[in-house]
Amino acid sequence: MNAPKIILASGSNDRAKIFQRAKINFEVIVSDFDENELKKANYSPAGLAEELATQKALNVKKKIESMGENAIIIASDTLVEFEGRIIGKANDEKDAFQILKKLSNNKHTLISAIAITQTFNDKIISDCDAASVNFIELSDNEIKNYINTGEWEGRAGAYSINDKAAFFIEKIEGSPSTVMGVPMQKLFLILKREFNYNLMQF
Amino acid sequence: MNAPKIILASGSNDRAKIFQRAKINFEVIVSDFDENELKKANYSPAGLAEELATQKALNVKKKIESMGENAIIIASDTLVEFEGRIIGKANDEKDAFQILKKLSNNKHTLISAIAITQTFNDKIISDCDAASVNFIELSDNEIKNYINTGEWEGRAGAYSINDKAAFFIEKIEGSPSTVMGVPMQKLFLILKREFNYNLMQF
Repeated sequence: MNAPKIILASGSNDRAKIFQRAKINFEVIVSDFDENELKKANYSPAGLAEELATQKALNVKKKIESMGENAIIIASDTLVEFEGRIIGKANDEKDAFQILKKLSNNKHTLISAIAITQTFNDKIISDCDAASVNFIELSDNEIKNYINTGEWEGRAGAYSINDKAAFFIEKIEGSPSTVMGVPMQKLFLILKREFNYNLMQF
Repeated sequence: MNAPKIILASGSNDRAKIFQRAKINFEVIVSDFDENELKKANYSPAGLAEELATQKALNVKKKIESMGENAIIIASDTLVEFEGRIIGKANDEKDAFQILKKLSNNKHTLISAIAITQTFNDKIISDCDAASVNFIELSDNEIKNYINTGEWEGRAGAYSINDKAAFFIEKIEGSPSTVMGVPMQKLFLILKREFNYNLMQF
């Protein structure tokens, strides 16, 4: 039997970039699972991220099974927890400003969950990883200039760790790939242990 | 007077990539300072990194002054400290294997120094930042497969945090850009405070 294809069940450019830089041979198939219902339910931040990743993985798995392909599906979800509340993506520039203003000169937690499953296999493994991130103090003008770069768009917490936000990230405590949107060290271990697939061999 | 040019005094692709992703408008001019003398002297790891960055910055400053240009010069140096000893770049694949074998299932410290100066200005500011990095356990085969990717070449500690090494970095404690080779949060603050140059405005 051929090695399974790797499917990234996410439309995020950041996640695709992490996979590319790790030299994973993969295809993107985005789920059309409606996330809004889950977001209204009463989950903890980590519980919500893991459940969203799981539902996205199962949704994409169904699509691929209907095509009869052997594939491992990897889905992910990322959110920011700040003072006990969940911060997702900003809706607009004003919202992005409010989020970054809160995170400035402060510490927040970034939570990234993954869910991994395989076609024609009942197994689905999900896990969650958290990292703390400290921002230096930003003036209102600096926040506005940052927002003008557009980096806030589509990102949990309205920033992207590896781009211009590098200027204001004082430190993180945790896995850098978790902060970027996929806990790669967990992905590596789960694929090896549970799916007999070693990403260091491909 | 025009805004000064930004010169990255480093031939490292990783550093150029960090600057590009932070949307800095810069040019690369590599120093031809001979690092070997300093490396033989009896410096502490942080002291050596800072002195090397300083000497590289001064070397490139001289070249640019002879061209009469107004420029801010940024030099950097990165090394790994492990059990009190300095680990630099690997000389060959065998050396890379020995380094990664030591770092596997262990914690090491990554030290990145920066030195910043400006043409026709006596000021030179240097600073140093440290981050700890934890690796998961790697089998000999996994290390060999990693070495085959070529990522070890030219990198302190024989790995590159954002590429395939993401699989085995369990956590870091410190600034991600420091681990990548330039402490961007320090660069931002020093340029603002000491050179009146705000990287969030360009």
